[in-house]
Amino acid sequence: MLITLTTDFGLKDAFVGIMKGVIARINSEVRVIDLTHGIPEQDILAGALTLRHSVAYFPSGTIHVAVIDPGVGSARRPLLIETNGIFFIGPDNGVLSLAVGDSTGAQIVQLTNPAYHLQPTSATFHGRDIFAPAAAYLSRGVPPSEFGEKLDGFVKLVLPKVAHMGSTLAGEIIYRDKFGNLFTNIEQHDLTGLTSERIEVVLADLHIQGLTANYAAAGAGEFVAVLNSWGFLEIALNKGNAAERLGAKVGDKVKITFAD
Amino acid sequence: MLITLTTDFGLKDAFVGIMKGVIARINSEVRVIDLTHGIPEQDILAGALTLRHSVAYFPSGTIHVAVIDPGVGSARRPLLIETNGIFFIGPDNGVLSLAVGDSTGAQIVQLTNPAYHLQPTSATFHGRDIFAPAAAYLSRGVPPSEFGEKLDGFVKLVLPKVAHMGSTLAGEIIYRDKFGNLFTNIEQHDLTGLTSERIEVVLADLHIQGLTANYAAAGAGEFVAVLNSWGFLEIALNKGNAAERLGAKVGDKVKITFAD
Amino acid sequence: MLITLTTDFGLKDAFVGIMKGVIARINSEVRVIDLTHGIPEQDILAGALTLRHSVAYFPSGTIHVAVIDPGVGSARRPLLIETNGIFFIGPDNGVLSLAVGDSTGAQIVQLTNPAYHLQPTSATFHGRDIFAPAAAYLSRGVPPSEFGEKLDGFVKLVLPKVAHMGSTLAGEIIYRDKFGNLFTNIEQHDLTGLTSERIEVVLADLHIQGLTANYAAAGAGEFVAVLNSWGFLEIALNKGNAAERLGAKVGDKVKITFAD
Repeated sequence: MLITLTTDFGLKDAFVGIMKGVIARINSEVRVIDLTHGIPEQDILAGALTLRHSVAYFPSGTIHVAVIDPGVGSARRPLLIETNGIFFIGPDNGVLSLAVGDSTGAQIVQLTNPAYHLQPTSATFHGRDIFAPAAAYLSRGVPPSEFGEKLDGFVKLVLPKVAHMGSTLAGEIIYRDKFGNLFTNIEQHDLTGLTSERIEVVLADLHIQGLTANYAAAGAGEFVAVLNSWGFLEIALNKGNAAERLGAKVGDKVKITFAD
Repeated sequence: MLITLTTDFGLKDAFVGIMKGVIARINSEVRVIDLTHGIPEQDILAGALTLRHSVAYFPSGTIHVAVIDPGVGSARRPLLIETNGIFFIGPDNGVLSLAVGDSTGAQIVQLTNPAYHLQPTSATFHGRDIFAPAAAYLSRGVPPSEFGEKLDGFVKLVLPKVAHMGSTLAGEIIYRDKFGNLFTNIEQHDLTGLTSERIEVVLADLHIQGLTANYAAAGAGEFVAVLNSWGFLEIALNKGNAAERLGAKVGDKVKITFAD
Repeated sequence: MLITLTTDFGLKDAFVGIMKGVIARINSEVRVIDLTHGIPEQDILAGALTLRHSVAYFPSGTIHVAVIDPGVGSARRPLLIETNGIFFIGPDNGVLSLAVGDSTGAQIVQLTNPAYHLQPTSATFHGRDIFAPAAAYLSRGVPPSEFGEKLDGFVKLVLPKVAHMGSTLAGEIIYRDKFGNLFTNIEQHDLTGLTSERIEVVLADLHIQGLTANYAAAGAGEFVAVLNSWGFLEIALNKGNAAERLGAKVGDKVKITFAD
């Protein structure tokens, strides 16, 4: 069995290490992989995207725990969701929703059974007191239905849609990675039938002619548009940081125009 | 068996990875969990607090290695301490002392036996050459007494005490986490018998009325005082960074006044 | 079996976590140790030095994966190298070369067999699609020759040489660690026969008299020259950050003079 952890806790403090201790006390055999703890603080969308584009690379049966949880201790519900043999644990604020996708056929449980909470249960660290224990007990074979009552749905994030208008696509930046590469919401299927060379990508004053296959296809210090490892159109600066150079950020509009 | 690592090495360099390699060469079976490597450089108090508030979440028998070690290579002693079935390894500069607590009944050993040091032994990286090997050999069942001579005591850190003066408590900030939350030395038991709503928390010009149960109980951008996951009174900014907003730091005085 | 990972991916994003998922899907038993993901972006020399000074601390048979890969997706070749029972996987840009050393007797294979690539194979994330799968399949016992055609050589980095001129050694800074310690290319053997106390280390306006055994041998805030854990002469500031204080960086010249 395998548990992954995705949080905005960073690695300065022992929060993540403590979650692993809690898991090890309950199930000393289960393996834990850090997906990342570098989600920007309280950035539910970044966490949800990260999870969505990662789960396919993990074995079936993996338990994915995501704790980006500005509402910790409030009325927001703690969830366990099973869908297609993959398990998700985290707060009901949308962070799990992009990875789970369609909820048809998903088993959704609210983590209310105190037998699977650490006691006493804090109001500020449910990663330690509710989510890590749930993942560990689940990995030991406790059935999902034991953790609490069934629910019919969960909070869903909606990604901004790409608008197709004649010979223009209108999208936006939805993620920025550590290299300053800018991920847009424009996906490969949005570009179906278009000739890569005849596409123009526009972000504020920047105009990039054509898609390139990889970063190094441009000269050092030149901007490129590529289809990246998440399947998104990405604006990058070869051997540089596009976000810093452009002062661009999540939410900025990106336009694609094409001649054919 | 389980080994945890707590250091101020950060994750920029391979120091931590190398310690894990050393452990794997000696005991390929033992699991290693990073508690954190983000302790501020040479901040023995932050390391000691982190360790104290983490060990309860790990299985009995765990070996906790803490290397915040500005005196590496000098006369400060390398230690192994066993107490209540938990093992601690690190320099004798106080970093282990808050977690070990009372030394009565503790077994204290100086790590002087060169058979359990890497050879040659550097003067600048005892994490690699002395502490990691000790943890790994201990996890293989080498008895503590084999590592060197017994000692009677160790260097102890003393946390600043909370002063109770009439209807006022005088404490201070002792830790700042990555979210900018400010941990004080005022603990739950200091507030026994007080009515949460009638407490006032004062930090410089900031006055917070009453304790709240969680961060989200306040509006976004409002300051709150909560009892946090370490059991300490904490000053936080809902969806914000209290330390940055206030310019507050470890050592700043915090006062609690109450009407009942 | 053991796989190590060295990258410039950082820990903000899920890139490293995804590589571990890919490995776990192919070989659920193999252990993975992060050497570091904090190599400065696209700094092949820093990655190569890190790997060279780490492999000796890992068990024989370990598979070391290094992905500092500005040319990802271009014509640069993906490699697997076996030498003296140690395995290296990464791009053919020099990042493996300092650890491999002399290529005599090394088995060098280009990772061209698509059966061991993730499909589809992206042009921007070979860590996920080519290098992680190669490491995982290798750890399961797939022979190196299965991964592609044999090669005769690989790209080699050349470290700047230390110049010996009469009673002077001329070297330079080749690495800076997270503490701001400055590693030079001057090694212990360059100083053979010299009296530690009579050496003078010169970096711009800084003159340090003599080598010291450890950082704490100087007063707080004093500069020291030590032979560090990599075996290099290092310039450090006791309880401080030498690189920041001096404004020094990789490539800066360092001179050693001696009287005997």
